[in-house]
Amino acid sequence: MTKVLVTGFGPYADTPTNPAQLAAEAVDGRVIAGASVVSRIVPGAYFESVAATVQAVDEVGPELLIMLGEFGGRSMITVERLAQNLNDCARYGVADTAGEVLNGQPTAPDGPVAYWATTPNRAMVIAMRRAGIPADLSDAAGTFVCNHLLYGMLHHIARHDLPIRAGWLHLPHLPEVAALDRNLGAPSMSVDTAAAGISAAIEAAVTHTDDIADPFPSRLQI
Amino acid sequence: MTKVLVTGFGPYADTPTNPAQLAAEAVDGRVIAGASVVSRIVPGAYFESVAATVQAVDEVGPELLIMLGEFGGRSMITVERLAQNLNDCARYGVADTAGEVLNGQPTAPDGPVAYWATTPNRAMVIAMRRAGIPADLSDAAGTFVCNHLLYGMLHHIARHDLPIRAGWLHLPHLPEVAALDRNLGAPSMSVDTAAAGISAAIEAAVTHTDDIADPFPSRLQI
Amino acid sequence: MTKVLVTGFGPYADTPTNPAQLAAEAVDGRVIAGASVVSRIVPGAYFESVAATVQAVDEVGPELLIMLGEFGGRSMITVERLAQNLNDCARYGVADTAGEVLNGQPTAPDGPVAYWATTPNRAMVIAMRRAGIPADLSDAAGTFVCNHLLYGMLHHIARHDLPIRAGWLHLPHLPEVAALDRNLGAPSMSVDTAAAGISAAIEAAVTHTDDIADPFPSRLQI
Amino acid sequence: MTKVLVTGFGPYADTPTNPAQLAAEAVDGRVIAGASVVSRIVPGAYFESVAATVQAVDEVGPELLIMLGEFGGRSMITVERLAQNLNDCARYGVADTAGEVLNGQPTAPDGPVAYWATTPNRAMVIAMRRAGIPADLSDAAGTFVCNHLLYGMLHHIARHDLPIRAGWLHLPHLPEVAALDRNLGAPSMSVDTAAAGISAAIEAAVTHTDDIADPFPSRLQI
Repeated sequence: MTKVLVTGFGPYADTPTNPAQLAAEAVDGRVIAGASVVSRIVPGAYFESVAATVQAVDEVGPELLIMLGEFGGRSMITVERLAQNLNDCARYGVADTAGEVLNGQPTAPDGPVAYWATTPNRAMVIAMRRAGIPADLSDAAGTFVCNHLLYGMLHHIARHDLPIRAGWLHLPHLPEVAALDRNLGAPSMSVDTAAAGISAAIEAAVTHTDDIADPFPSRLQI
Repeated sequence: MTKVLVTGFGPYADTPTNPAQLAAEAVDGRVIAGASVVSRIVPGAYFESVAATVQAVDEVGPELLIMLGEFGGRSMITVERLAQNLNDCARYGVADTAGEVLNGQPTAPDGPVAYWATTPNRAMVIAMRRAGIPADLSDAAGTFVCNHLLYGMLHHIARHDLPIRAGWLHLPHLPEVAALDRNLGAPSMSVDTAAAGISAAIEAAVTHTDDIADPFPSRLQI
Repeated sequence: MTKVLVTGFGPYADTPTNPAQLAAEAVDGRVIAGASVVSRIVPGAYFESVAATVQAVDEVGPELLIMLGEFGGRSMITVERLAQNLNDCARYGVADTAGEVLNGQPTAPDGPVAYWATTPNRAMVIAMRRAGIPADLSDAAGTFVCNHLLYGMLHHIARHDLPIRAGWLHLPHLPEVAALDRNLGAPSMSVDTAAAGISAAIEAAVTHTDDIADPFPSRLQI
Repeated sequence: MTKVLVTGFGPYADTPTNPAQLAAEAVDGRVIAGASVVSRIVPGAYFESVAATVQAVDEVGPELLIMLGEFGGRSMITVERLAQNLNDCARYGVADTAGEVLNGQPTAPDGPVAYWATTPNRAMVIAMRRAGIPADLSDAAGTFVCNHLLYGMLHHIARHDLPIRAGWLHLPHLPEVAALDRNLGAPSMSVDTAAAGISAAIEAAVTHTDDIADPFPSRLQI
């Protein structure tokens, strides 16, 4: 049976409850299009996040790796298309959960500038929209731990030539986090809505080995 | 037993599913702080909306009237503080559900410029935030059917000196509506989240006859 | 010769340079559609602002009063349609320039809930857009000193039955203010662009005693 | 004398007047920190844009190449950090000025996933902010002609090992373009403000061969 590894993060910075944790837990154990989902929560720290996800990959043996993170300020689930070899905390004014602050350092000193995610991104966006979940493509995964982990896993998979497709879904704040004074005004999405979107995206990723060619309109232009 | 009348609208314009309808139906029959909630769906047309709500008030006999509407583009449940005696469809580029287009006409030719809602608005916002629901005050209910109905009911209650407190909650798009091409990028809120917020707001309105004095930060400045 | 009094404010809160001051000074002395513009900078404090503007009206004797303020976060020049009898600093987390914090107090304890501006607002918006200046109508002048002064002057003019039409233009941040860390990401508008918009709006106000009927699309829905 | 080549584009899609053209023309001939600026307007078409810029580089012989484009919806001048080997018109719903629509094709079939701009990007952002111009870093140059030209020139310079540093500045809409119905609500920036920012950025790029290490806050997180 095809296995899908889903990863999430716990609390960090201004986010006491991480949608990536709750949504990963919500889809854990689901069987989607004949594939079984196994979820793991990994550390929200630059270098530990990659080590923990590599270990989870070794243990679970997935054909598909879907990593989840929070992107406060976004209103839709966004499918990241690209990860770059650059870490830059300054943009967010925060340290990672290990207290590490990186401002300009690469993830892999010998790695390429960037990798593309190997998931069928258009198919995943269209599947989520058809399921009634606001979703879009993104070309900017940020320069914090999310981009780092996506880059790190794509680099790991490429160097070891592993038969694993890997991609990233960014989730909006949870409502209870957007209700806090410090995040006020930010859009939000409930765990149930996020989990429904993730399931639709996984179904699309499992059933499409190539991406679809159909273009579609997008609003996430910045 | 105290009665709370909640009103919602059905589909209109670019909104095939109205959060105000689904949320009104979700709280219908709930008993909140000893008050029983009765929900009614009223027409989304300027003048019929007031007539239908006046009739529902006559039938239900509420002490508290909470009207619901959709405000596409907002990320939070907003408590409207003011309704003005002006209808202006041009801003939205749409007609009401009866095909009526008003651009500058008053709701009540002999009425005052504006009314304030008579609900404890600060208490309602704080109660929703404490319940984990993004919420804020608003001073602009728009110039479409929502503002019209709020003005119309406050005018009706004032002229007839009815012992009814009345206010308005604006809801973001539903996720399935924000997932449509024409609304893409707009923030959204699930029915469950909206209904939890409405319940918290009703509890605050039932238990506070005066509003609270505590100010709080706000982000809805436009 | 028709006289137009334009007022602006100086620095306050997070705004070390006020576009309302620089733009008022930029149009001072201009002759527009046969009307001469006289500008005055008034205090950015709740009650002093009204007293100073009343005094300026007495001295200048204008037929038209155009008051200017800054509305950080807006991208367009906005023509305010309504002022309400409510002051609420909490929304902004700031005091006025006299250190006064009002949270719920009226401007005029015996005044009506709201006044409408008596300027031809649609004509002013259309004239600005035709001049290439982003502009829109607004129904929410806020609850800080701007709304207070607009309400205060409309109340003064109404009580004394003065033959003066009065309205309000809100300006975006200046670029140098939007470049500060604390305002980063906010849209901005240069003094030259703002002054060109104000001149176009004044020309429309001088030449239209009635507002135009043509509706137009609007994006400032929140 | 050090030479700086600045490129801009003409009208396209919903932009009848391109800030990149007007700003390029405004800085043409300026001498900045001892370097002379030469501006050229290049075609807004995928493949012609690279050919024309390569030819301009050959003719002018610059040490520094600063390319300009419009990014409607952004409020600040943004310094692009990365260009990717992917063209995708679907996001924008437009063709290039030659009528070409690319949805997924690479710029260089044999090229790497991405290049980083070789300008001192942090220094340029800080210099613009100090000059009073709203500015920020960006990691997403889009997937239209701007990203294509930036990728194309970085690829050309890398393959031919040319001693030219190259980067990109994205400009907001001009006010007259943001005043059009179809762009209403978008932030804007005047030509004078944009040209002042570009000059400050060029001065920083000429005087910093290495980027500065100081991080700074950013708001362009999406």
